[in-house]
Amino acid sequence: MDNIISFDEGNGILVCEAGCILEKLDSFLAEKGYMMPLDFGAKGSCQIGGNISTNAGGIHLLRYGSLRANILGLEIVLANGQVIDSLRSLRKDNTGYDMKQIFIGAEGTLGVVTKVSILTPARLSSRNVVFLGCKYFTDCQRALKEARSNLGEILSAFEFLDRKALDMVLSHSDGLRDPLPDSKHSFYLLVETTGSCFNHDREKLDNFLEICMDKGVVADGVVAQDNQQFRSFWQLREGITEALSKAGAVYKYDLSIPVPYMYNIVENLQHRLGDLAVVMGYGHLGDGNLHLNISAPRYDSKIFSLIEPFVYEWTASHKGSVSAEHGLGFMKADAIYYSKSPEMVQWMTRFKQMFDCNGILNPYKVLPGSSFKEGSRYRNVSNSS
Amino acid sequence: MDNIISFDEGNGILVCEAGCILEKLDSFLAEKGYMMPLDFGAKGSCQIGGNISTNAGGIHLLRYGSLRANILGLEIVLANGQVIDSLRSLRKDNTGYDMKQIFIGAEGTLGVVTKVSILTPARLSSRNVVFLGCKYFTDCQRALKEARSNLGEILSAFEFLDRKALDMVLSHSDGLRDPLPDSKHSFYLLVETTGSCFNHDREKLDNFLEICMDKGVVADGVVAQDNQQFRSFWQLREGITEALSKAGAVYKYDLSIPVPYMYNIVENLQHRLGDLAVVMGYGHLGDGNLHLNISAPRYDSKIFSLIEPFVYEWTASHKGSVSAEHGLGFMKADAIYYSKSPEMVQWMTRFKQMFDCNGILNPYKVLPGSSFKEGSRYRNVSNSS
Repeated sequence: MDNIISFDEGNGILVCEAGCILEKLDSFLAEKGYMMPLDFGAKGSCQIGGNISTNAGGIHLLRYGSLRANILGLEIVLANGQVIDSLRSLRKDNTGYDMKQIFIGAEGTLGVVTKVSILTPARLSSRNVVFLGCKYFTDCQRALKEARSNLGEILSAFEFLDRKALDMVLSHSDGLRDPLPDSKHSFYLLVETTGSCFNHDREKLDNFLEICMDKGVVADGVVAQDNQQFRSFWQLREGITEALSKAGAVYKYDLSIPVPYMYNIVENLQHRLGDLAVVMGYGHLGDGNLHLNISAPRYDSKIFSLIEPFVYEWTASHKGSVSAEHGLGFMKADAIYYSKSPEMVQWMTRFKQMFDCNGILNPYKVLPGSSFKEGSRYRNVSNSS
Repeated sequence: MDNIISFDEGNGILVCEAGCILEKLDSFLAEKGYMMPLDFGAKGSCQIGGNISTNAGGIHLLRYGSLRANILGLEIVLANGQVIDSLRSLRKDNTGYDMKQIFIGAEGTLGVVTKVSILTPARLSSRNVVFLGCKYFTDCQRALKEARSNLGEILSAFEFLDRKALDMVLSHSDGLRDPLPDSKHSFYLLVETTGSCFNHDREKLDNFLEICMDKGVVADGVVAQDNQQFRSFWQLREGITEALSKAGAVYKYDLSIPVPYMYNIVENLQHRLGDLAVVMGYGHLGDGNLHLNISAPRYDSKIFSLIEPFVYEWTASHKGSVSAEHGLGFMKADAIYYSKSPEMVQWMTRFKQMFDCNGILNPYKVLPGSSFKEGSRYRNVSNSS
């Protein structure tokens, strides 16, 4: 299940089996002048079938869009053993309903993805990354706006982390240093550009930095000078998860929140928890995706009761999503009602019943048990139910 | 139904009613520094709700991706009167199945789109367009490859038309001239770039042209020197449909075909039809989307019998789609089997039965009548059926 089936060099269309490791696919494409449109810390172990089943996001969604735009075709095995072959390699196909979409992000509860056709972007030669320090979260937002207008088409990632997240990764990772050691900042930004001409990109980046400094949006900043520094800046962002797991107990939330309010929940929750735990925030600022992490010496029911349902209720009241990119799985299936109406969940249950009436595919995931009313799991579905 | 409900200036998220005209939305966004991610000839009259229901493609899909990536939320009215509110303004939301996707491109047969939340890209300041002449279709493909690597992140459209299409538009449109009058070419390309820095873009474009000329990929070319020339180059491409309707009877096909074989069908069909009709090809080369048009003095059953089912069979045998971006509607509903397996169509029929068991929404469209077997339209749906 980890074979590459074909690659169209003229149009960048890769067809492969679902068990291929994301990083291996990217290495294969590198030789052909292309790249995978998605990237994240787990790339060395995650498989493309899982990426699709969880509608994985990652650091480059800002530039290359979601999997919904890049997946051209899927082969899916259904609960009844039927193989659905929509493994086309066409950018456009408006013949009937786009069935494959319903399996993207369904976490394997409607069918099992076995083969994939995916559109891959050209691997451009020039990549740069800058590490910036900001005083306020509003400055981070202003920097994002400047990046959108001044970096425009070359902007490929816009990530943020707060000071507590930086401290966490610095204290648990060997060989990583603070890129801005002269002063401490409340927030840090990691801004990546990708383009086809190094000189043009550097000129745009210098211009962006000058504007940010002049306007007082950014307090300090440094451009990675070589590949090693490029990687070490990214390790500061991507190493947070691992550092947290070394530090003790960690409660993790993956929220979509409108950018202006995004950091308020970190502050509010820290206020609630006081000295019991350290609350930190980082994530994909350009996508409005906050990774909210609470680090404590050990798992504790008092701490947990202060976190939940507060985090979910806060997110719902700000029209956010309680799972931006990680999915619901087993643990968060009941939290679906914070982001979706009972009517929506009822329709989802009908999809589940239609494709998997015996509930044999990844049971108890995604949909809450309560959505399957007495006997309804085996009941036929109709519009009037 | 044509009101703008909200616009998030920081993140470019537009929420509006489904009756808004595409061009009016784009003009509204222009003032805010953003643009609609889709564009095509009918922008002055088409409505965003219809664009979504037909999963419209257009000239900028190459750059900004499909509607599936850019639509963040929808409000939909179902056949039973229920209002499904998924009008979120979040770039990422993995809480349950992404229900709204099934309504995109369903041509109103599963529900009626009434409100829309859409992600809009920044409106970059520099736009250029070049008009190129090529000797062979293989040269057009080579030029596309050069554009992908040399124009990279600024490439925003890559369109082609053959000489017959150019002649058609020149002879039926007042005030349009051949941009390359010194010699006739078999194929023409219209390559657009969009970026944030005019000097950078022009340098990349000059470099691209020099490489194409040096390698003999392109026989001749001209860069639009001002806004008027920019528009007139585009009118040559976008005016073909109207010109065809003035010329007499026209048989239209909108096909996705793997790029290497894309033009073969034009030549094969011309050979079949001989002097009975003129076959021309144009479209979105970068997306593998061919608009195949047959112009004849009048509608004629002999001509039609030479065209169909030949065009569909040829497309199916080359693993293409018989409707790339125009949808199936009423006239092509029965052609669905050329691009989708009977099993897929059966599942689509189950979706239709689930959402609209009485068949009251846009009846006879998308799905062929034969897919609803005796009595099945009113039958409950189960996995075993």
